[in-house]
Order: sequence, then C-alpha cells, then structure tokens
Amino acid sequence: MKNSSYLYLQFADRIEKQIKSGVLNVGDKLPSIREVCAETGYSMSTVSKAYYEVESRSLIESRPQSGYYVSNISSRIITEPSSSKPALSLQNIESEDLIDLVYGDMKKEVTMLSLGFPSNELLPIAKLNKGMVQAMRSLPNSGTSYEDIQGNPNLRKEIARWSFSWGGSLTEEDIITTPGCISAISDCLMTLTKPGDTIITESPVYFGVLQLAKSLGLYVMELPTNMTTGIELEALKKVLAAKKIKACVLMSNFSNPSGSSMPVEHKKEAVRLMEFYNVPLIEDDIHGDLYFGSSRPTNCKTYDESGIVLCCSSVSKTLAPGYRVGWVSPGKFKKEILRTKLYHTISSPTITHEVVGDFLKNGRYENHLRKIRQILNRNCTNYINTVLESFPSGTKVSQPQGGFFLWVELDKKIDTTAFYHLALKHNISIAPGRIFSFQNQFSNCMRLSFGLPWSNELRASIQILGKLAEKQL
Amino acid sequence: MKNSSYLYLQFADRIEKQIKSGVLNVGDKLPSIREVCAETGYSMSTVSKAYYEVESRSLIESRPQSGYYVSNISSRIITEPSSSKPALSLQNIESEDLIDLVYGDMKKEVTMLSLGFPSNELLPIAKLNKGMVQAMRSLPNSGTSYEDIQGNPNLRKEIARWSFSWGGSLTEEDIITTPGCISAISDCLMTLTKPGDTIITESPVYFGVLQLAKSLGLYVMELPTNMTTGIELEALKKVLAAKKIKACVLMSNFSNPSGSSMPVEHKKEAVRLMEFYNVPLIEDDIHGDLYFGSSRPTNCKTYDESGIVLCCSSVSKTLAPGYRVGWVSPGKFKKEILRTKLYHTISSPTITHEVVGDFLKNGRYENHLRKIRQILNRNCTNYINTVLESFPSGTKVSQPQGGFFLWVELDKKIDTTAFYHLALKHNISIAPGRIFSFQNQFSNCMRLSFGLPWSNELRASIQILGKLAEKQL
Repeated sequence: MKNSSYLYLQFADRIEKQIKSGVLNVGDKLPSIREVCAETGYSMSTVSKAYYEVESRSLIESRPQSGYYVSNISSRIITEPSSSKPALSLQNIESEDLIDLVYGDMKKEVTMLSLGFPSNELLPIAKLNKGMVQAMRSLPNSGTSYEDIQGNPNLRKEIARWSFSWGGSLTEEDIITTPGCISAISDCLMTLTKPGDTIITESPVYFGVLQLAKSLGLYVMELPTNMTTGIELEALKKVLAAKKIKACVLMSNFSNPSGSSMPVEHKKEAVRLMEFYNVPLIEDDIHGDLYFGSSRPTNCKTYDESGIVLCCSSVSKTLAPGYRVGWVSPGKFKKEILRTKLYHTISSPTITHEVVGDFLKNGRYENHLRKIRQILNRNCTNYINTVLESFPSGTKVSQPQGGFFLWVELDKKIDTTAFYHLALKHNISIAPGRIFSFQNQFSNCMRLSFGLPWSNELRASIQILGKLAEKQL
Repeated sequence: MKNSSYLYLQFADRIEKQIKSGVLNVGDKLPSIREVCAETGYSMSTVSKAYYEVESRSLIESRPQSGYYVSNISSRIITEPSSSKPALSLQNIESEDLIDLVYGDMKKEVTMLSLGFPSNELLPIAKLNKGMVQAMRSLPNSGTSYEDIQGNPNLRKEIARWSFSWGGSLTEEDIITTPGCISAISDCLMTLTKPGDTIITESPVYFGVLQLAKSLGLYVMELPTNMTTGIELEALKKVLAAKKIKACVLMSNFSNPSGSSMPVEHKKEAVRLMEFYNVPLIEDDIHGDLYFGSSRPTNCKTYDESGIVLCCSSVSKTLAPGYRVGWVSPGKFKKEILRTKLYHTISSPTITHEVVGDFLKNGRYENHLRKIRQILNRNCTNYINTVLESFPSGTKVSQPQGGFFLWVELDKKIDTTAFYHLALKHNISIAPGRIFSFQNQFSNCMRLSFGLPWSNELRASIQILGKLAEKQL
C-alpha cells in the first residue's frame, strides 16, 4: 500500500529536495508530466499528484499552457536559529504569569498560533464517535467501572504492537497507561525525584516540564541545544560526570519548541551515557509518529537495553486531546511507576481508553496518521515560506522534520513578550520564547504551531505578524 | 415528592428506631396495617411498604395469617467498636504490599467485601449511555478537544447548585473539576505540603490517604478517633497547638473505614480550630450524599467562612467510577490548586465530565441517589445483622449512618491479616484493619463494604467469615 498509493509523496519529496539543494533554481521549468512518465515509469496520475503536492507546498507554480516552474519563494535561504547557550547553573526566573496568559487565550476568539494541539479538522471525530458507541456495548458495565490498574489491556497490547514502528519490541506488560502524556511524565518525575533534586533538560524546553519541575521543587539544569540535532552531548556528558543528576527529560524527535531531532548516533550515545551514569531518561516521544520523512524515526527507547529509559507518549497530538489517553513504558521502574499512578489517579477514564485501543487496531491509526502527517508537512512548508516572505530579513526559522512547531528567531532588538501582547491586539496568539526557559533566554524567539489548517486567513495572520516585527525594528 | 413518595421510608425508619431503642422487643406483635392507617392517617399502601421495608432489613418477620412480629435478629445488642488510641508520634510501618494484595483481588472471581465502590446493579448505566450519545452530539468536536482548565462549566454549575443540599452556597467559580476524588486530594496535598511536612488524619484512615502522604514524603499524625463521632477534638486541638501541621485530611461524613460521622458541633469546632491555627482542612466528602437519615448532613465546608476548607468529592461512589469525575471547592487556595491541576493533568476527560454535568440537571441525580441510599441502608442492616448472627460473641460492629463501610472489631486474638488470606481461600476478600494505619493498630479489625447487592450468596459468604473467625479462637 505504502509503495503504490504514496509513491507520489516520495516523488514530491524528491522534487522538494532538488529545489532546496539548488539542483533546480528559481524560474527553472520542470519537465512536463508526459516527459517524467516516460523517464520514470510513473503513471500520469502519480506525477500530476506529485506536482500538485509540491505546488501546495508553494515550491513550484503552474503557468497556464506552459507548465510548472520553480517559484520565487523557494529560493529564500533559510537560516537555522542559533544553538542555545544557557548558563550551566540553576537559575530560576518566574515566567508563570506569562504562561497563564498564553493559556488564557484559549477562551478567546483568536488565531491560536501559540498552542500545540491538533485543529479539529485533523481529527477523525466521526470514527471515534462510532468507537464510543461500540465501546459502550462491548465494555463490562459500559465503561462505568474502574479499569485494571496498569490500564486497559487492549490498549496496552496495541501500543506494544505499535512499538515495532520505532524498532521496539515491547509487550503489553511493558506499558502503563495514564490520563495523558503529561500525567505520565508527572508520574515519572514524582517517582524518581524528590524536592531539591536536579534534573537535566534541553533548552529551550517545553514549559510544561519546567512547571512540573517547579511544582515538585526540582532544580532544572538546562543544557546547550542545537536547533537541528537537539541536546549537545558534550555538555550532557560533562554535567552527568560532574553533578548528581536524578533524571533527564528529553524529546528526541521533533522537540517542543525547537523542532530539533537527535540523529540516531546521538540517541544511542545519550542512552549509553544514561546507563553509564545510572540516570533515568524520561523520553517524551509524543511527536514521534508525526514525521515528515519516509519512515518512523527511532527514539532513545529503541536503544535501551537496561531499562533506563521511561518512554512517554499519548494520542493527544494525533487523535483526541480531550480523551486523556497516554502511556509510559517505564523500563525497570515499572513497579514504582505503577504505585505512583495508583496513589495519585487510581484509574484512567475507562471508555476513552477502550475507544483508542480499538482505533489502534486494524491499521486505522496508520491510515489516519498518513493523512495528518501529510497535512502537517504541507502546513509546515507553507508556514516557513510565509514567515520568510513576511518577516524582516535576518529572521531565522527552524526546519522541523515532523511535529507541530516552528521556532522563529527574530532580531535581538525584538522582545517577543511585548510582541505577544502586540499580536494579541490583532487577535493572533504566539508563544513567546521566554516561557521555554527558567533562564533569561530566548527573549527574541517565538514558537508558532502549524497545527491549524492552512488558509488565506492564516497566511494573512502570519503576514500581519511579519509587519508587526518589521515595525519593531 | 419527598413527602409523598418517601413517607413510607420515614415510617420504616421510625419503626427501626423503636426496635433498636427497645420500645418494641423481640416477639412483640406490630399493630395491623389497618390499625396503623386509622392511627396515623397513612394510606394502606404506605404502611404496607413501610412494613415490607423493615422486613427487608430483617428487623421484623411476617407470620402467615397472624401479622408482623419483631424478629429475633433485631435483639442482638450491638457493641460499637472501640475508639482508636494511636500513639501521638510519627511512626511509619509499611503495609504497602498488603494493600497491593487487596487491590490485586479485583482481577479474581471473589466476593469483594474489601473494596469500596458501588456494584454495577446500583449504577444507572442505560441513562449514562444515553447521556454519552447526547454529549457526542452537543459538545464541540464531540468531546475530543481539551476542556477549560478549571473544568466543564455545566458540571461546575451543577455541583455548585448541589451545594445547597449541605447548606453551601458555592458558585461555579468556586469549583475546580478533577479526574476523580483522589486526584483532587492529591492536588490539594501537592499544593499545600512539601516533603518532611506533617499532616493530621483520623485513625483508622483511608489507606489511599496514607499512600498519597507516603508518596509525597509527608509524615502522618494519626489522631484518636471515636467510631461514631469521628476525630477527637481535644487531641486535634492539642496537636494543632503544639506542632507545625501543614494540613488536615478528614472525612466528616460516613468516614472510610470507620463509618463515623462528626456531629454538627464537632464540624463547627474543627473548622474554628483550623481557622485559628491557619491550617488548611482537606475534607473528603465523597460519601456525603449517601446518608441513611432523612436529610443530607452538613460537612465542614458548610461552616467555612474564611476559605480554609478544601472540600473534595466525586461521583465515583454514586454514578460511575470509570468516568473519572471529581472536584474540589478549594476555598482561598483556588489559584494554587488550579496550577497544580494544570501542571500534572492539564485537563479532565471532556466527554464523561459533560455527561455527569448533564445527569446532575433536572433532578435525575437526586432520584438516583434516593434509590442507591435506600439499597445501601437495607444492605447495611442486613450485613450488620448477619455479622452479629454469624460471628463469635464479643464481635463489635459499627453502625454507620451512611456510606459504604462496616468496621468490624474482632477478638484481640484474631489477626485479620492472616484472616484475610484465610478468607481468600474461600473466595472472599476483606480489607484487613492493618492497612488503615501507619502504626501497628487495628490488627483485629476489618472493613467490610456493603456496596454489593444483598443476596443469599452474600449472606452465606458473611456466614463463612463468621465461622472462620470462630475457628480462630
């Protein structure tokens, strides 16, 4: 199925690569569809669809009665945002009020470029509703009773089966379900740390992790991070060797907010270091299934032989945030994590966990993911192009290979906290860079979510942001 | 409605009181239904139903062609279990493995007298399923999206309205919903304490509170508790005056496991003390709606004017444990509790919270509660009678006025942990007293849940327990 139906996507990706690498330049005419068919052996339909796909990414444009040409937008040189250089110390500056503000926008009629959950258009709501009716019939007592403490067995079985996609070989016994990914991370941190302990994170790091750490009285050591390859291993090694660290929290794939992904060798080395220093690695793999490339990337758990990795995820970014379905494969900490779950939550919502367990069966989830990945990939390209088009020159933007987020670095003179308030007056909400660190960093950065469906209105919103940024200079 | 349809219950309660107080004695003939109608003005139907109700409580029996007589069982003198006298120190003995065992029984084919959730027969499953279908239609995106951080507004409004039943006057702004009551208590403890702090509880106390405390690194000061009137106020006052206490966790109504209820004056005085010493009172009111008397008892929150009481509850004992619907009215700690909820769980399951919000409207919940209360009241009487009938003389049993639990005190020679294992061999699971304290107490006590529907099989199970206890002596 992958090879026939999605051939056109592979071909589109190849064209994109040729444009970005300069093999094809602005204004170049692409070979006609007929010519390509003759050369490649693809069908007319495959080639048309591929050209249409590349056009929807704004990389080529069709000129009537002439053919396809590489568009002007595609020529912009994309500059990656700078690596972070946080102080290797335990600063702790409050940004809670700012986070409260950003969350508060949820209630208003604003274009939410700030928050990272899928727009409703991306969710298979009708199919989930069918699943809900089915679950009411099939579950004992229609799902009004508590489920097993370790979690719904069907769901655990499917998550375990799914682990093959990233090279894992989990069984249902290796999974504990939770009401969402953050609950899983919370259970891990509560189990592994006590107040006064220090944990390691990337920098910038998802503010939810900072808030959890603060709520648990933990110190956070933010490490230098490359916006493409993730946490810097030299720094990681140095800190693990020098300090007493109780846990490390990482997103190895399509990190929030930077969009970085650790190369395979980095993942392996990170796991090796954790094993060597006996420091548990809490891996947040919530974006792992949302890759834009041709196959599912591995995660750190893939290379974990000793059980030092606690891999957390959920379907909140792909199926239904409101269902509260997440999980952790806790490695050697299973017994302790199970207790923490029991003590603090007893049980997850029975019915929604059954629905998701059922949805994961029979390839339905994979079909759905293909669609959502394709839309996000297209959105991402459109967002990047529009940012480059509209923002002052010198603006740097990340090039995530999956996930939900762009990391945008503006001129140093622009304070994105002030910019946040300014944008909100235009009914656009962005996530200011400051909330992704306990240190005074990223004041000229912002995170944009590309989970909203692409439209002319959205393009206009990003253009407005660009003009506002221009004015700030 | 209350006055007409449920007149017979009030009358039945009066007859029960007359029997228990000795106004009516074993073998006494009750006046005929006709006579009662003439005396009281009640209808034939009301009086018949009342007699039938008292008969179902095993307090009277009908003899063919003769009438109703006070039964033999009713004469047993019920001795209340002893007040607890825990050491006023911070002992901490592990009973986790034992709790794990008791929870583990859930999977097996055993008569679960150990666990305190409603049996399926008590739940309005068909109505909830209808509500679920309705909620899929009415909720934006069929409930797949996150809800408000403070929780579903309909549900909060209905919980606020419901507070009138215990003399409260909350608004929806005074409620934060959570995925269950234990999550609410967990959020309160996480917000108000840090490791090394000391909290106060009753003794015996719900083991879930002990587990939470342990998981958060808290010391627990268990206070002397009367099995009828709850925590002893003199002790409470003394400890509050002498020690630095960070919070107090109490069940003022139908406590788990003792079944005790604090008299109104005790509730008032407890709140006064908490205010005076500025110690937050986390009140677990999960059994409050399950009263056997004629009206809803007040709780500590009723008398809270300064916001020192954080009142937690849920529908897990009355509607649907698997729905994960709970809440807290956090008094003056609202902002902090809201943050803890956000950091550790983000959001509750959207759809089940909507369903319960809807169920609470239009008196459906009250109708359902009337039924469940009546069944529990009848179960309770039957359990007590069968325990008194079957267990060795000298066995003491609590007389809860609501809730789910009987507290049974056996001869000092009987170790209920060994007894637990013995009973399990007969496929009966009880909750041994030892798990309700961090101290070495209650080894001759056990908790029996009367949430299972009364039947001859259940009577036989309790009779088996009685025989096993007899053998132990």
